[in-house]
Amino acid sequence: MPISQQVQNQMKGASWIRRMFEQGVELKKKYGERSVFDLTLGNPMVEPPASFRAALREAVEGDVVGAHRYMPNIGYEATRAAVARSLAGDMGVALSASRVVMTVGAASALNVVLKSLLNPGEEVIVLAPFFPEYRFYVENHGGKMVVVGTSEQFDLDVEMIAAAMNDRTKAIIVNSPNNPTGVIYGAESFRKLNEYLEDHRRRTGRTVYVVSDEPYRKIVYETRRSPSPLAYCRDTVLCSSHSKDLAIPGERIGFAVVGPDVEDGELLLNAMAFNVRTLGFVNAPALMQRVVAGLQDDSVSVDWYREKRDRLYQALVGAGYDCRLPGGAFYFFPKCPIEDDVEFVRRLAERRVLAVPGSGFGVPGYFRLSYCCEDWTVDGAIPILEELGGLGGKSVGAATKATKGVSQTAGDLRPGFPLN
Amino acid sequence: MPISQQVQNQMKGASWIRRMFEQGVELKKKYGERSVFDLTLGNPMVEPPASFRAALREAVEGDVVGAHRYMPNIGYEATRAAVARSLAGDMGVALSASRVVMTVGAASALNVVLKSLLNPGEEVIVLAPFFPEYRFYVENHGGKMVVVGTSEQFDLDVEMIAAAMNDRTKAIIVNSPNNPTGVIYGAESFRKLNEYLEDHRRRTGRTVYVVSDEPYRKIVYETRRSPSPLAYCRDTVLCSSHSKDLAIPGERIGFAVVGPDVEDGELLLNAMAFNVRTLGFVNAPALMQRVVAGLQDDSVSVDWYREKRDRLYQALVGAGYDCRLPGGAFYFFPKCPIEDDVEFVRRLAERRVLAVPGSGFGVPGYFRLSYCCEDWTVDGAIPILEELGGLGGKSVGAATKATKGVSQTAGDLRPGFPLN
Repeated sequence: MPISQQVQNQMKGASWIRRMFEQGVELKKKYGERSVFDLTLGNPMVEPPASFRAALREAVEGDVVGAHRYMPNIGYEATRAAVARSLAGDMGVALSASRVVMTVGAASALNVVLKSLLNPGEEVIVLAPFFPEYRFYVENHGGKMVVVGTSEQFDLDVEMIAAAMNDRTKAIIVNSPNNPTGVIYGAESFRKLNEYLEDHRRRTGRTVYVVSDEPYRKIVYETRRSPSPLAYCRDTVLCSSHSKDLAIPGERIGFAVVGPDVEDGELLLNAMAFNVRTLGFVNAPALMQRVVAGLQDDSVSVDWYREKRDRLYQALVGAGYDCRLPGGAFYFFPKCPIEDDVEFVRRLAERRVLAVPGSGFGVPGYFRLSYCCEDWTVDGAIPILEELGGLGGKSVGAATKATKGVSQTAGDLRPGFPLN
Repeated sequence: MPISQQVQNQMKGASWIRRMFEQGVELKKKYGERSVFDLTLGNPMVEPPASFRAALREAVEGDVVGAHRYMPNIGYEATRAAVARSLAGDMGVALSASRVVMTVGAASALNVVLKSLLNPGEEVIVLAPFFPEYRFYVENHGGKMVVVGTSEQFDLDVEMIAAAMNDRTKAIIVNSPNNPTGVIYGAESFRKLNEYLEDHRRRTGRTVYVVSDEPYRKIVYETRRSPSPLAYCRDTVLCSSHSKDLAIPGERIGFAVVGPDVEDGELLLNAMAFNVRTLGFVNAPALMQRVVAGLQDDSVSVDWYREKRDRLYQALVGAGYDCRLPGGAFYFFPKCPIEDDVEFVRRLAERRVLAVPGSGFGVPGYFRLSYCCEDWTVDGAIPILEELGGLGGKSVGAATKATKGVSQTAGDLRPGFPLN
């Protein structure tokens, strides 16, 4: 066999979801695109803000000599300074361009940071439910992913994290606003996490890094921005992108930011600059770096999402689903009315509503609905969700505390398409 | 220490070159940019062709709904079809879009292919002199790089490759037109390589893949295109980019192509699609994919390079350097007039001419000059090269056959800047 065994295993773990995906494709062929209500994708159907289009035209029309050449691997100084300035303003943290590395989206940032940190066998804690690609990012660089549960409200639980730590723990991946739950972790949670990690470091001499994946930081409904560990946890590396806030996921533009007081921060930044290059990214796309430099405080309007969120929430709660109103991102993560989430999602698909089972995110018994779709998709899905809402009648019972021992086989959820 | 030990070792191996780089920066500060003649960079100073600028404006002005969204990870069908059509026409090989994966430049393509192929400890043969980043690409995915020499003319030598093969050999990286020598491997060399690899497969049952890195395929001086292993070696994966032919290295757009008869080609393509996503590239930048779709047969004019090449060649040969006229790319790789290439490059730097020692490419006793620079750089460098040409008087003596046992410590040649 010519293919890496690790890659084969990773791909195999995902075969059941591949079948589901193929079922969706079949449904669309059979009934037509507009008769299938696809709530699986994290590919925003909203268009980029006008400011993005203006900045893009300006960058292309004012095309200067050398605009498409290599620049230093970490990116243009002006773009990095703009990222630092905006984050510093939002968070009240002292940041300069020297702490910022421009990347090919947040997935690139996460790979660069994990490659820089991990020795073989070192552990990275992720909090269930979790974005399933984290497993691959960790394994790419020889690390081991350790799944830790969250509270019944899907909030970060420091005690559960503490119970999973050992002398191989190198990092914790935190994702707030969360995919798939839409939950925003509070500032107080981050303060407690920092206290615990500082204490851990004093006791053991070992630094554990908080790798904060924040592509949804500006997609929030009740506040201007979600709290970031960068403002509360000393050893934080923030990873983000403009895929969601500017709705340009196809362009692959993001960044990693090393907090001002991070342990061995300079060394880490040097390693990240090296790995941006040697992992084959080389640098973030030049044109998009110039475009986003002036858009650091911009975002798509969340009203586009809020309207769908509110309509779906009313329908889900009305139909008896156990479900939280998401504070950010564009996902619902309701409890299934029957225990078997894969079976429930299959029943939805029979009725031409496509969703993702919670098992894919390490939490069986739930399902994810994405509402970054068009209105007709929400309109078509609601009656079906209402119809199936009464199926089980009562909740599954297993509180999320029980996610500690959940399946670690989440895999390739959408072959050929990213989930975020 | 927070940083991966592997990454630290890789970075440390490069510290002497970092010092050289810093010396260059110092020189430019001291004497002014225009008084230092920098022939180290592979960052073309030529501007993209007019067709690129037109296509970019058109893509931006005709900005359609959904233009910046995710597409399938392997890229737009139309772009992949255009790549396949152009290569099929050039090479007389049957290729369709299904064999093409769009990537974030050639460095991304190489990482994706190596990640897809390698199990821990499997070996990848590279031919010295070689682009030093290959070591990192191989090590990123658990492989071991094995350095094999080339002929006295720096041509591919199948016997030397055969002598280095064993049951852990998984792939051979071939780079023609070559960085750093400018040598083009002939069709006959590839035919012989294929014969040997076919025979090897019959004898051992093991397939060894030819990973062909061809960013300079269109930068050739005597023919329209350089021969590609894709046309001659059955198990070839071609990796390329538009960094050199369209002079847009900062935009990170390239592709990988799996030959029509490659062993387990479908499986390999599936793994590559998976790894484009999970290594964090996700997809090649959307806008650039649309721009390059119509430019597959375009290229910058090589006349811009030819003029500098001819002038430098005349000067080098006139000054007694042992040196070949490059058939492609934009590099010279002359023998140093003294044995110690690092010392020779130091002496050049004292006179404000910056070059890269051959040790960086696995072949001590030589040095690399890049002529993708501006005219004044070539003009300024020539008198100094002439002055130092007579230093040793006679050649170093060690034929390139002797490169079999060369240093494997080539490292981070240009911190913060790629060499190709």
